[in-house]
Amino acid sequence: MKHVVDLAWKTNMAFETEVDGHTLRLDTAADSGGDDSGPRPKKLMLAALAGCTAMDVITILHKMKIEPEEFHVIVEGDVAEEHPKKYLSMHMIYQFKGQELPLDKIEKAINLSQEKYCGVSAVYRDAVQLTSEIRIVK
Amino acid sequence: MKHVVDLAWKTNMAFETEVDGHTLRLDTAADSGGDDSGPRPKKLMLAALAGCTAMDVITILHKMKIEPEEFHVIVEGDVAEEHPKKYLSMHMIYQFKGQELPLDKIEKAINLSQEKYCGVSAVYRDAVQLTSEIRIVK
Repeated sequence: MKHVVDLAWKTNMAFETEVDGHTLRLDTAADSGGDDSGPRPKKLMLAALAGCTAMDVITILHKMKIEPEEFHVIVEGDVAEEHPKKYLSMHMIYQFKGQELPLDKIEKAINLSQEKYCGVSAVYRDAVQLTSEIRIVK
Repeated sequence: MKHVVDLAWKTNMAFETEVDGHTLRLDTAADSGGDDSGPRPKKLMLAALAGCTAMDVITILHKMKIEPEEFHVIVEGDVAEEHPKKYLSMHMIYQFKGQELPLDKIEKAINLSQEKYCGVSAVYRDAVQLTSEIRIVK
């Protein structure tokens, strides 16, 4: 199977594409010659990772009849200072809020995502250091 | 320097984050239990690559006083059939339309992006095969 993204130049530093029928506009900040009409492209790498593993985890927890009140995946990327300013490592924080949240089942869901299901992690892990932690807020 | 993305669960399979002050909503299709209220996360990997190298190239061409009429970066990703359904390779098509488009300078701009500036390529290249081609439409 093939996925295709066709990104078109709009004006100045702004670009647009359709992803699954939803318009995504990318741009840079004014100090890089842009108009800040959309996010910077590189940070989409972090959003891709957060979204991929978050969807796995919420799906698996749903099957386990575990429903958090709140759930966040926070991804921190360390950026190299020299060109190419790539991510050197990424840290994922799985943050849950709720009362009935068994840690062992949450760990199992996260491990299934990281070891079996998340295609974004599977690529990044071959290139950068990936670490994670769980935070449970009562 | 550290980049942070905080992705919050909204409802069902929908998640939202702010990237550079712009709301980004991710979701899955109905056949995966979602409501299709946003793009799938994995494809953001392709949009990140397209945007990163496209912004490099348009910036370098601008310095070279080369202004295409149209410019697209199309990224095709081959997806593994088995879990984790990761990208196995990515092919970048740099497509230009215009009259005064010297191929040698366009090649130089693309090479500068791929070899020096694009932080997304620099990560992906360590994990998957990256290839590229140039298309010029008169």
